[in-house]
Amino acid sequence: MNNVISYLESHRSQALEGLKDFLRIPSVSTDPEHTKDLQRCAQYLSNELERIGMRNVRVNPTAGHPIVTAEWLGAPGKPTVLFYGHYDVQPPEPLELWENDPFDPTVRGEDLYARGSTDDKGQVWLHVKALEAHLRENGSLPVNVRMLIEGEEEVSSENLEAFIEAHGKDLGADVVLISDTTMFDYDQPSIGYGLRGMAYMEVRIEGPNKDLHSGGYGGSVPNPLNVLSAILGQMVDSDGRITVPGFYDDVVPLSDEERDAIAALPFSNERFAERLGLMDVMGEKDYSTLERIWARPTLDINGMLGGFTGEGSKTVIPSKAMAKVSMRLVPKQVPEIIAQAFEDYIKRLAPSSVKVEVIRHGTGKPVLTARKHPAVSAAHEAITKGFGKAPVYIREGGSIPVVAMFEEKLGLPTVLMAFGLPDCDAHAPNEKFHLPNFYRGIDTAAWFYEEYGRSDALD
Amino acid sequence: MNNVISYLESHRSQALEGLKDFLRIPSVSTDPEHTKDLQRCAQYLSNELERIGMRNVRVNPTAGHPIVTAEWLGAPGKPTVLFYGHYDVQPPEPLELWENDPFDPTVRGEDLYARGSTDDKGQVWLHVKALEAHLRENGSLPVNVRMLIEGEEEVSSENLEAFIEAHGKDLGADVVLISDTTMFDYDQPSIGYGLRGMAYMEVRIEGPNKDLHSGGYGGSVPNPLNVLSAILGQMVDSDGRITVPGFYDDVVPLSDEERDAIAALPFSNERFAERLGLMDVMGEKDYSTLERIWARPTLDINGMLGGFTGEGSKTVIPSKAMAKVSMRLVPKQVPEIIAQAFEDYIKRLAPSSVKVEVIRHGTGKPVLTARKHPAVSAAHEAITKGFGKAPVYIREGGSIPVVAMFEEKLGLPTVLMAFGLPDCDAHAPNEKFHLPNFYRGIDTAAWFYEEYGRSDALD
Repeated sequence: MNNVISYLESHRSQALEGLKDFLRIPSVSTDPEHTKDLQRCAQYLSNELERIGMRNVRVNPTAGHPIVTAEWLGAPGKPTVLFYGHYDVQPPEPLELWENDPFDPTVRGEDLYARGSTDDKGQVWLHVKALEAHLRENGSLPVNVRMLIEGEEEVSSENLEAFIEAHGKDLGADVVLISDTTMFDYDQPSIGYGLRGMAYMEVRIEGPNKDLHSGGYGGSVPNPLNVLSAILGQMVDSDGRITVPGFYDDVVPLSDEERDAIAALPFSNERFAERLGLMDVMGEKDYSTLERIWARPTLDINGMLGGFTGEGSKTVIPSKAMAKVSMRLVPKQVPEIIAQAFEDYIKRLAPSSVKVEVIRHGTGKPVLTARKHPAVSAAHEAITKGFGKAPVYIREGGSIPVVAMFEEKLGLPTVLMAFGLPDCDAHAPNEKFHLPNFYRGIDTAAWFYEEYGRSDALD
Repeated sequence: MNNVISYLESHRSQALEGLKDFLRIPSVSTDPEHTKDLQRCAQYLSNELERIGMRNVRVNPTAGHPIVTAEWLGAPGKPTVLFYGHYDVQPPEPLELWENDPFDPTVRGEDLYARGSTDDKGQVWLHVKALEAHLRENGSLPVNVRMLIEGEEEVSSENLEAFIEAHGKDLGADVVLISDTTMFDYDQPSIGYGLRGMAYMEVRIEGPNKDLHSGGYGGSVPNPLNVLSAILGQMVDSDGRITVPGFYDDVVPLSDEERDAIAALPFSNERFAERLGLMDVMGEKDYSTLERIWARPTLDINGMLGGFTGEGSKTVIPSKAMAKVSMRLVPKQVPEIIAQAFEDYIKRLAPSSVKVEVIRHGTGKPVLTARKHPAVSAAHEAITKGFGKAPVYIREGGSIPVVAMFEEKLGLPTVLMAFGLPDCDAHAPNEKFHLPNFYRGIDTAAWFYEEYGRSDALD
C-alpha cells in the first residue's frame, strides 16, 4: 500500500482539478432543461473510468438520465464490491444566496464550494481516484469492483429499478458500498447502519375559478390558502406528533439498547441550535435530537405558494394554492401505505367547496443495514487508518432509496462510508466539501479496497 | 339636458378612445419601477381636465405619487360636489392568465379588458366625460365641482391624509361622490351605503439561518412553513369564526331590519357558486352570503411563499416563510386595534424556536354612509334615468379607506354610485368594464350633476 498512498499524495492537485471539471457540469436532474448536461456529465465520468483502467465502461441510456457502469473483475477468489453513487445534483436555487456560481467550483479556506461537491460528485470522485492509484501502481485492484453511478438519485431514482431488474446478472457482488452521507461530526468519522425512507407529495387546492378581490368576495368563498394552511397546520400536533391516521402503526420503536448507544454519542443541543441560528431545537416530544433525526418519522412542508407574494400588498383571494410535503419514514413504515394515508387524510380534511389534487413525487423505503459483515470490518479498519480515529456507528436522517432496492432486488447489504460533514449544506446554497476530508477520503477508500481484499469472499 | 345627452351620444367613440389611452399607462402604484408611469398618468388626466374646461387643474406632488385636483366653482348658491377617484391600479400579475396585455385595452364582445378598466380609471373617465358634455354644451356645470383624483388608492392612500389636512380649505363641499364600486347585479343598479375597512398584514417566520436538507435535519428543527401553516391554520375556526382574541368585540351586530332588507334582495347562492366554479359557498356560520360579504369581518391569506415551489421535488427545510394576510373589518372595529391583536396573537402562537416579524401594510376604517341626503336622492333619480331602473341600497365588501377619511377630516358624507359589474374582475386577471355600463354611466353622471343642481345646497 505504500506505493498507492505515495501516488495519492503526489496526485492531489490532479484529483482536485478533475473533480472541479466534474462539478462544472450542471447536472440538475429535476430540470428538463439540463437533460443534455446530464448526458455530458455521464460521458465525462465514463471517460475518466476508461482512463484509469476500468473495464466494460458504459453509459447506459434509460427512459430518463443515463446510468454509468464499469467493472474490474480480475481478482478471482476475492470478494466483489458494487460501488453505487450518483452524478446528478439538486437544483441550486435560491441562486442569490450563493457566494459563488454553484457550477463554478471555488476554494475558500479549506472548503470547495459547488453544487454537488459533497452530494455526491465529490464522494464519487474520491473512489475513482482511489481505484486509479491501485490500478496505476499495481496494475490491479485488491478486490473485484463493479460500479453503478446513476443520474436520477435526486429524482427518486426513477429508472434504476428497471435497470437493476434487466442487468441483475451483471451486478452480482458481496456488498454494496456507498459514500453519499455525512460523518457524525467534524473530527468523528462514522459508519452508517440506517437510513430513513421518504414519501414526497404535492397538494394542490383550487377554490374559485379565478383570482378574486378579497373585498368583494372575502368571507363568502373558500380561500385556497386558508384551506391549505388549515389542513397542513393540523398535520403535526403540538407534541410534534403527526396526525395522519395510522402513521405510526408500523414504526419500530427504538430499543433501550439503541437509545443508550445514541445517548452515549457526543452531541450538544446548544451547539446544534447555535450553529443553525436557532433559539432552540424543536421536535417530537420525549425524543432526543439525534433520535428525532435518525429514528423518528417526520412531516415537513418543503415548499408552499399561492396568491400575491411580491412587494407591498394586493387584496386577492387566489384561485389556487399548492404545497410540497415530504415525510421521512423509519423502519418498517411502507412508503406507499403512508402516501395513501396522507392523501386520504388531506381529502377528508378539505372542505367540500374546493377541488383537491394530491400528487406523489417519489417514495423510498427506510432501511437498517448489516452491522456485522466483513465489509463493515474493512471499512472500520480503513477509516481508522485514513482518519487516525475509529468510526462510530450511526443512522442517517436522509434517504437513499436505492439501499432498500439493492437489498430487495439483489439481496445485498450496504456499507455507508461517509466523508461529508454535517454542515456541508447538501441541497442548500453554498454546498461545500471539506478538502481535508476529500484527501482523507481518497486514502480511506484506497485502504477499504485493500482491507476488504484481505477478507474472505464469503460472509 | 337634451343637448348634453345628444353630445354624449355623438361622442361615445371619442370617450372610449380617450379611456383606452388612459388605460395604456401602467400606473401600478405598488411597484417602485412604475413611479414615472404614475407621473405620466396624472399628467394625462390633468391635460384632459384642462381641455374640457375645468379650472385650477393641478398635479400636486406628494411624498409618493401625485394627486390631481381641479375645480369649477361657477354656480353660486348651488351645492358643491367633491368628486374622488384614483388613477392608480393593482399589479396585473399573474400575467399568464390574461387574454390580452393588461395595458393594451382590448374590446371583446361588449367588454373592455384592461387593468384599471373598472377600478377605477373607467369610472373616473365617465365622470370626466359627463362634465365635458355639460361644459361644452352649456359653458357651465349645474353644480360646483371639486375633483381629487389620487394615485395611491391601491397602496392604502398613504399620502392622502396629509394632503387633505394641508388643503382642507380648498376641499370644502356638501358631499363626496365616488364611483369605485360595483352594482348589485347585471341589471340592478345600486347605491352603496356601507364599506368594510381593512388591516393588511405580513407575517415573516425565520427558522434555521439557512435552508437545510430535510433528511439530515427534518424532525429536529422548526420548519418555518410548518410553523406558519400551524399558526394561520388556526386563525379561522371550523365555523368560519376568526380566533384572534377580541376580534369581534367592537362589531356592530346586524339589525333585524337590515337582515330583512338584505334577505329581500334577489340573490342565489347556487348562481353565485356556479359563476365562480365552486362546489359550494363557504363562510361564517349563521350568516347569508351577502351578510358575509357586506357586514361580517374576514381573515384571508392573500399570499404565501416559502421553500421550493418549482417543478418536481426538492427536499428542503426553508430558512424562511412569509404570508400576506388581510382582515376586512366592519363597523365599529378599529383597524389599529385589530392589527395589534393580530400581531400579539401571532407572536403568542409562534414557538420560541423561531423569529417572528409582523408588518402592517395598511389599514382603513369601515364606514356606514348617509342614506338620507339630497345627493343620494339626486343619485337615485340619475340612476333611474340613466339605467331605466331604480337602484337598490347595498353595502360593499370592499374597502375605500378615504370614505372614512373624508368623514373624519372634512365632515363630509359620501355617495357611492357604482358602475362596475360583480364579475368585472377588479384586482384579478382579465379585469373588464362592461361598455354598455360605461355609456350608461356617463349619462347617469351627467344626470347626477343636473339633478343635484336642482336641490338645495343645504342638507
